[in-house]
Amino acid sequence: MTKWLDGPATEEDVIISTRIRVARNLSKYKFPSRMSVEESDDLTDDILNTMKDTLANNYKFMRIRDLNPREQLVYVEEHLISPSMLRTKDKSSFLVKDDEKATIMINEEDHIRIQTLSPGLNLKESWEQCSLIDDELEGELDYAYDEKWGYLTACPTNVGTGLRASVMLNLPCVSMTGNINTIIEGLRKVGLTVRGIYGEGSEALGYLYQVSNQTTLGQSEEETIDKLNRVINQIISRERSTRNYLKGKDPLKLEDKIFRSFGALTHSRIINSKEAMEHLSNVRLGWAMGLIKNNNLKDIVKLMIDIQPAKIQERFDSEMTEEERDIARAGIIREFILNMEG
Amino acid sequence: MTKWLDGPATEEDVIISTRIRVARNLSKYKFPSRMSVEESDDLTDDILNTMKDTLANNYKFMRIRDLNPREQLVYVEEHLISPSMLRTKDKSSFLVKDDEKATIMINEEDHIRIQTLSPGLNLKESWEQCSLIDDELEGELDYAYDEKWGYLTACPTNVGTGLRASVMLNLPCVSMTGNINTIIEGLRKVGLTVRGIYGEGSEALGYLYQVSNQTTLGQSEEETIDKLNRVINQIISRERSTRNYLKGKDPLKLEDKIFRSFGALTHSRIINSKEAMEHLSNVRLGWAMGLIKNNNLKDIVKLMIDIQPAKIQERFDSEMTEEERDIARAGIIREFILNMEG
Repeated sequence: MTKWLDGPATEEDVIISTRIRVARNLSKYKFPSRMSVEESDDLTDDILNTMKDTLANNYKFMRIRDLNPREQLVYVEEHLISPSMLRTKDKSSFLVKDDEKATIMINEEDHIRIQTLSPGLNLKESWEQCSLIDDELEGELDYAYDEKWGYLTACPTNVGTGLRASVMLNLPCVSMTGNINTIIEGLRKVGLTVRGIYGEGSEALGYLYQVSNQTTLGQSEEETIDKLNRVINQIISRERSTRNYLKGKDPLKLEDKIFRSFGALTHSRIINSKEAMEHLSNVRLGWAMGLIKNNNLKDIVKLMIDIQPAKIQERFDSEMTEEERDIARAGIIREFILNMEG
Repeated sequence: MTKWLDGPATEEDVIISTRIRVARNLSKYKFPSRMSVEESDDLTDDILNTMKDTLANNYKFMRIRDLNPREQLVYVEEHLISPSMLRTKDKSSFLVKDDEKATIMINEEDHIRIQTLSPGLNLKESWEQCSLIDDELEGELDYAYDEKWGYLTACPTNVGTGLRASVMLNLPCVSMTGNINTIIEGLRKVGLTVRGIYGEGSEALGYLYQVSNQTTLGQSEEETIDKLNRVINQIISRERSTRNYLKGKDPLKLEDKIFRSFGALTHSRIINSKEAMEHLSNVRLGWAMGLIKNNNLKDIVKLMIDIQPAKIQERFDSEMTEEERDIARAGIIREFILNMEG
């Protein structure tokens, strides 16, 4: 199961995980979209060569084109690489750290994208980890950097710090009351974006939302991290107070919702991804509120990843139709919860 | 819990229960609707007096006006008396046999209505039991009877045999496929009626349907019973073959439905009557098909009665709002199933 979720996590009653990534490019190469496969192989060799002493020891290297389509999707579902990596399969590759908490993507939209992942809210430390890797690379490689504009990137929206910091939140209660819409509107006004669990263009699954900075220009990395951290803490307060409000106003209605979700997860024989994610989100809420007492439920986030389409097919090592996956998903969930209770 | 459901039952994978009633009137009294309270008391005394040696030993006598409104409804929900008994509360009374399998209602729509109840499909024997009581009463009382028309009744639809034979069926599978509509249409064409669980005008709860004869004129009691028996057996075949068809076609979809209902019943904290009945109907199907192996589930029919509004309030000896009952209902169901599993 997804290793990067292991370890201590803070604010985990509301926060699922934290992700930091920086976009970097090398001055002597064209941007990935304009590169030939040969040039991209040269770039890749260049990066690997530079890194062989410092980073490569704890990292596993993989080229997208050497993975079968299912394996490629598994890495995406585990959040170790971004979906965009699969747009240019011939040119893209990545290094993933043994503990999965860091990935260096080569030839995604930019030459280099460094990503750090951690469970819970961990913006500052995660940024420091990312920055450390970035410094090591920058020591060896000639980054495309402009005194006025900062780091140059393939897409203008990343120019400047090249930093995107994202936090994944479980917001069932502000979703139930409908306040989520006001929150999303407010976030947009302060230059933050809200996305679903699998990044750009993806729909919210369950009650999981990914909040990240939009701006990379005119503010330092520290300012970006601090600002996001402040806003995330406001959302945490809002979700917590809504939980308390709902618990005080109509405790049984909330319990009913949570336990019905638990009942559906432990009894269904066919379940699609959307429904499963919603119930898992509710059950995680029940665990966070102390209504379902079982600390293993912390791992429900791993289960959320394990029931994604490619992960299911990887587990059974077979190509499956949507219906077959819905059946397998129900089984995986039941097994997880039964083992958990045992 | 409802005693009349005890004892052996046939065809119980589909059939919940059998009910027979005959309507009788005494020639020297006006029909109940035209009677004063005094006259109805005279009639009641007359009947009780006549019966004191033969029947009264094993029967308990009650006047509706001596029961509080909740007690009155409990008898209705247990099917021991008909809802119409509560229309003329001052004039109506009843005798209920110790094993609850027979009731004699005084001043319902007619002076006398004899009812026998039994679990499963039991038309012939139930009719014989009813007829035996009828014979005993007829030996002592002067029934309004016409050579040409048969037994005279307050409502012309009962004139003739005065017999209504009803069977309660659990038809989840023909309901799921939508075939229930064709069946209902067909039944109407052969002079049978289909009603919900609480008689005339009541909506189908869960997948429970009550099928009974419409005609009381121009055919003997035996013909009525035989015809209904034949048709009921056809419906049983139809439901069973549909169960096998669905099991063969998509076993997991059926299992999914049944186990999700089981999950909802064991986990909900608030549940209304309609939803509970539907899930209980599905779970009974699961038991009948051997998917949920627990013979105590036979008593789910008793549970169906125990979660009706007045029964719930009787159990807690308190007046409850609809919401309070929905909460209590969820608790009663969970308790029943947890005890069952223990």
